[in-house]
Amino acid sequence: MTTVRGYAAHTPTSPLVPFTFERREPGDDDVEIQILFSGICHSDLHQTRDDWGGALFPMVPGHEIVGRVTRVGAKVTKLKVGDFAGVGCMVDSCRECASCKESLEQYCEQGATWTYNAKERGSDQLTFGGYSETIVTPERFVVSIPASMDLKAVAPLLCAGITTYSPLRHWNVGPGQKVGVIGLGGLGHMGVKFAKALGAHVVMITTSMSKAADAQRLGADEVLLSTDRAAMASHAGSFDFLLNTVPVSHDLNPYMALLKREASMVLVGVLTDLDPPLKGVSFMFGRKKLSGSAIGGMAETQEMIDFCAEHNIVSDIEMVRIDQVNEAYERLIKNDVKYRFVIDMASLAA
Amino acid sequence: MTTVRGYAAHTPTSPLVPFTFERREPGDDDVEIQILFSGICHSDLHQTRDDWGGALFPMVPGHEIVGRVTRVGAKVTKLKVGDFAGVGCMVDSCRECASCKESLEQYCEQGATWTYNAKERGSDQLTFGGYSETIVTPERFVVSIPASMDLKAVAPLLCAGITTYSPLRHWNVGPGQKVGVIGLGGLGHMGVKFAKALGAHVVMITTSMSKAADAQRLGADEVLLSTDRAAMASHAGSFDFLLNTVPVSHDLNPYMALLKREASMVLVGVLTDLDPPLKGVSFMFGRKKLSGSAIGGMAETQEMIDFCAEHNIVSDIEMVRIDQVNEAYERLIKNDVKYRFVIDMASLAA
Repeated sequence: MTTVRGYAAHTPTSPLVPFTFERREPGDDDVEIQILFSGICHSDLHQTRDDWGGALFPMVPGHEIVGRVTRVGAKVTKLKVGDFAGVGCMVDSCRECASCKESLEQYCEQGATWTYNAKERGSDQLTFGGYSETIVTPERFVVSIPASMDLKAVAPLLCAGITTYSPLRHWNVGPGQKVGVIGLGGLGHMGVKFAKALGAHVVMITTSMSKAADAQRLGADEVLLSTDRAAMASHAGSFDFLLNTVPVSHDLNPYMALLKREASMVLVGVLTDLDPPLKGVSFMFGRKKLSGSAIGGMAETQEMIDFCAEHNIVSDIEMVRIDQVNEAYERLIKNDVKYRFVIDMASLAA
Repeated sequence: MTTVRGYAAHTPTSPLVPFTFERREPGDDDVEIQILFSGICHSDLHQTRDDWGGALFPMVPGHEIVGRVTRVGAKVTKLKVGDFAGVGCMVDSCRECASCKESLEQYCEQGATWTYNAKERGSDQLTFGGYSETIVTPERFVVSIPASMDLKAVAPLLCAGITTYSPLRHWNVGPGQKVGVIGLGGLGHMGVKFAKALGAHVVMITTSMSKAADAQRLGADEVLLSTDRAAMASHAGSFDFLLNTVPVSHDLNPYMALLKREASMVLVGVLTDLDPPLKGVSFMFGRKKLSGSAIGGMAETQEMIDFCAEHNIVSDIEMVRIDQVNEAYERLIKNDVKYRFVIDMASLAA
């Protein structure tokens, strides 16, 4: 075992504090990564505060991990010491079910093993995430990151990036389509960039006109204010696809009205109760569809990184030190970040 | 104008009573039908009682209409005097929009003209439905009914039939698929018959084991009791398609859990608020889809009638006289009908 320093939450109400724990030595299939940058995802906040129930403490959050490979197991083929690599939300899955065989490990029928707030496969050992010095992960759950990329701004791609890229690809978003991205936060700003890069006409849909200029800078062709009834009515029935990135429950009915016949709205924020209630008739008249999507499989995550490298896409970030993480969480609650905090993990040693 | 006898509701709380009104003479494109049988749809009850708001009185309900052609306009080509014909939920649409051009008139961008509780296109004249002696309808909104069919049991096909046939066809239900039909009423019993005829493995999903024998008689391969948690768990993630025919709001989350990855549940009951709330995570983990479907277009309605003639499918009905309509409504509320009331319109003359 290797002793590793990190930051952990110990109860749902206490701040994150320095924490030392043990990681396994890399096995034959494993890659050990020295973590350089770790993005702060909204779900880190939800999980450390046990908003979804079942939180496992001590909890070392972080599933937007970028670093440098320091050791590889004997059977590792796609990465070597010194390479840049990333780890996202998963560190294992059953590898046997139909979903795993299609590299849709996030939909593993046995349940994927999450990067933190979970137990190692077949063991009671907790998984610990990226707010730490190193991580040891099976090669299958590690992506290769081209050295040309801005590594700190790549970190959020491992969750915010793949979470928005995967549904845009799965629902075949492309040229000639009018696509709406609802919510301009960590996910939404990536959704705008990807939808634009895929060739769609992109409408940023927001509650605040203050985001208009930024949305256009990120690639939006139009900005639609969801609180403007007349504007919403003028766009009724006109969207081929809606990517809904809002991380809290909200009224979905006005967005259903924006969809064309047979078009889909896809939820990527982790929403609990869809309240206020949806109207059944929102679906009937036009066979409109509501769906959801969770991150992406490992093959698609690598594809997304390669797409980003090719199209010069990274996240817009604000760097923080690890000792600023609690302050960053408070600012995240107020939506006071453009658009993703990334922890410089070198600050752990400082 | 022709004076026509029928039955109408005059307020949301009063019973239906005899009512005399005027119908237009058939124009060049119109077909006049002497109504022989008129099915009683759950939505007749909702509309006469103004459950959905905006009810227009006096209201002559009825949109499951079968009869004999008595007059045809000069430009009518597909029907002649003496033919059997049917009229469903629509009597007109804009005929110009993309949906109309695809014969999806029910999704007309200008709104279809409903058979009753609506206004004639471009006029303030109320439309009056099938609880009456005759109806005059543009040929496009009339289907041809083979003389070989059991006409009284054909009537419910015009709404209950097409409402279940259309989504099963649109979502490509067929051999090799496990399909669930939720709710065994007027719609559900047709859903079971159609899903079976299309070659699927059909599971009738119900709250009451008392319906098991009947479900199997109708063609179900299995019956699943939705209140049996263990049984529901044993079917988790196994359905290719769910047709939800329940006409009142209910908890949809247990059914979402039955779907395979990427599979759809389609609502065909006219539901207002989807309460209790759906869980967003029901959609995310597996990209599951919720959708809805409203009746079917006119081309597909004719296709459905022809499919029924070929496969010997009609509704299971109980005949009533027109003066029993209020009693039938009360029994409908108690779900005391197998599976559709049909009014013998000859009783209007008695």
